[in-house]
Amino acid sequence: MGPHPAVAAIRLAVRRVLNDILAEHGRTPGRLTPDERSSSPLVLVACSGGADSMALASALAFEAPRAGLRAGGVTVDHGLQAGSDLRAAEVASRLRELGLDPVESVAVTVGRETRVAHSAAYRGGGSRAGGPEAAARDARYAALDAAAERHRAAAVLLGHTRDDQAETVLLGLARGSGIRSLSGMAAVSGADGRYRRPFLQLDRQTARKACMVQSLPVWDDPHNTDPAYTRSRLRHEGLPALEKALGKGVVEALARTAQLSRDDADALDAWAGKAAAGVRDADGRLECAALHDLPPAVRRRVLRRAAIEAGAPAGSLFARHIEEVDRLITGWRGQGAINLPGRVVARRQGGRLVIRQG
Amino acid sequence: MGPHPAVAAIRLAVRRVLNDILAEHGRTPGRLTPDERSSSPLVLVACSGGADSMALASALAFEAPRAGLRAGGVTVDHGLQAGSDLRAAEVASRLRELGLDPVESVAVTVGRETRVAHSAAYRGGGSRAGGPEAAARDARYAALDAAAERHRAAAVLLGHTRDDQAETVLLGLARGSGIRSLSGMAAVSGADGRYRRPFLQLDRQTARKACMVQSLPVWDDPHNTDPAYTRSRLRHEGLPALEKALGKGVVEALARTAQLSRDDADALDAWAGKAAAGVRDADGRLECAALHDLPPAVRRRVLRRAAIEAGAPAGSLFARHIEEVDRLITGWRGQGAINLPGRVVARRQGGRLVIRQG
Repeated sequence: MGPHPAVAAIRLAVRRVLNDILAEHGRTPGRLTPDERSSSPLVLVACSGGADSMALASALAFEAPRAGLRAGGVTVDHGLQAGSDLRAAEVASRLRELGLDPVESVAVTVGRETRVAHSAAYRGGGSRAGGPEAAARDARYAALDAAAERHRAAAVLLGHTRDDQAETVLLGLARGSGIRSLSGMAAVSGADGRYRRPFLQLDRQTARKACMVQSLPVWDDPHNTDPAYTRSRLRHEGLPALEKALGKGVVEALARTAQLSRDDADALDAWAGKAAAGVRDADGRLECAALHDLPPAVRRRVLRRAAIEAGAPAGSLFARHIEEVDRLITGWRGQGAINLPGRVVARRQGGRLVIRQG
Repeated sequence: MGPHPAVAAIRLAVRRVLNDILAEHGRTPGRLTPDERSSSPLVLVACSGGADSMALASALAFEAPRAGLRAGGVTVDHGLQAGSDLRAAEVASRLRELGLDPVESVAVTVGRETRVAHSAAYRGGGSRAGGPEAAARDARYAALDAAAERHRAAAVLLGHTRDDQAETVLLGLARGSGIRSLSGMAAVSGADGRYRRPFLQLDRQTARKACMVQSLPVWDDPHNTDPAYTRSRLRHEGLPALEKALGKGVVEALARTAQLSRDDADALDAWAGKAAAGVRDADGRLECAALHDLPPAVRRRVLRRAAIEAGAPAGSLFARHIEEVDRLITGWRGQGAINLPGRVVARRQGGRLVIRQG
């Protein structure tokens, strides 16, 4: 008799990602001798102790030796609740019981003062909800980046499910800043594709069921049900209300929207990258007439890219800023300079669009 | 003292659209002599008697003579409720009281058996919710098309607000079929741009307020609050829950998403249109190697277009169909023919992709 369907599902999802990692390292799946083992690539799982990442850890512990990979785990102690250090130690010991090695518990400091370089994984897909959620995420990814480098890990697996993806799409929708923000989290992200999300097509219920049938104790983060957090409100009120209005397929539809939007945004970014060269004069200045001839979607991306190159911080540059700059091209009636974030100024001068700091 | 801000807002929105219509007819705004009047373009308003379209009718009645345009109105009796004929007659008489001329009440038959050619306005932006809503919409647009042609109207104004747009985006999101379905309703749609939506940037509250301060009686369609209707559930439960979770800016963000998605979808469709020619051999057959080199977003659009050209009905062709055809290109392992709607079959033969009926 095979494993419970939920366990089979989480293992299949992990096996697929491990096969990708093996292929990238020029290896084929298969058990190793103890000698070969020490030199085989290491895959880490980031585990909070919640159902999603405990299920992920259990599947990794099962699949990695069969694939010829080493498997370890990291749990991050955000220090936001009393006793969080003890809980992190408990999660670490559960990961060791699963057979993972090395296992680390890493303490981080989360606060308004947290100054962590935003990781590419964060920029690539996080929810940018701001506030405490964003600070905790920044600290977490910095700690995971550091752990991955310390252990020279080939990859770090993250337990985000299709439900998390649906929530991320809705958070992006609330920003109203276009299809890139609808594209949710990537299956592969971060420096050199470090972060992998095997469960992005899997629903949360399956992960929870897999823990139950494997008798894995799971920890329910009280933040996940705290209505002070945007994502928690979305999970417990927003999405259920949408499902009630639109039907049960909403989560799947949102996840599919993420994938389609990501591909569309990638294609348009590539187009804008090529177009940006073609709309500059011999001195590298943007020509308004050439910009005017581009499709609006491409032109706005060229303008956004130019503003960022001039020093405007990407995170503060909103759709309305780019629309205003765009009107220098499509609605020219002699208007003055446009002030953008980062002390960047856009102005039209003699048929050229000049975007620079100062 | 000027008009109430809500009245000023609805008039401004209508004035802008009338100016567009005048410009398209090579005219400039201005009052006309009685002689000139009879030959001036006619603008119709589609009015249900609800707050949105009554506000629109009142603004059109005010602005049209000042712009040098004739203004008329059409109300559609869907015959779905007892006494709907009397109500339609009442709406028509209110439109006449506003000074509109001609005014028509048109009775239509809505039913599962309704066989109406889908109007371009419908295809371009409707919610495709299916069921009774879709049938009523089909019948309505067919009646409006016929009225516009009978009166040789230059345009038909529709009262859709920013709130309607937000709902349409969410309905599109629930389909999970990509950014075209997120692009909501167009400001201009239908044959020769017949349909105009002046209130697409205006919130429902402003329209309602404008009716109130002008003492215009409005009729609240019980369908709008009937939880049997998807849009009604969305309006009264789904969207408020989303706003509670994500903040009050959700409606605006959804409307902005619609505009950005529409521009993005237009640009990608244009790219796919050009790319489609470049991936065919001398005999016009699709070359798999050339398709493989396209960005996924463009390739999928080329494949979709090819399937439709081969006879697959656009409305039955879902993202999952196209994904399966795409795997003949990107995941080729000798798989068999793919069956698509409309008895269209896609198969790979000797490096060529053959999509045809039969």
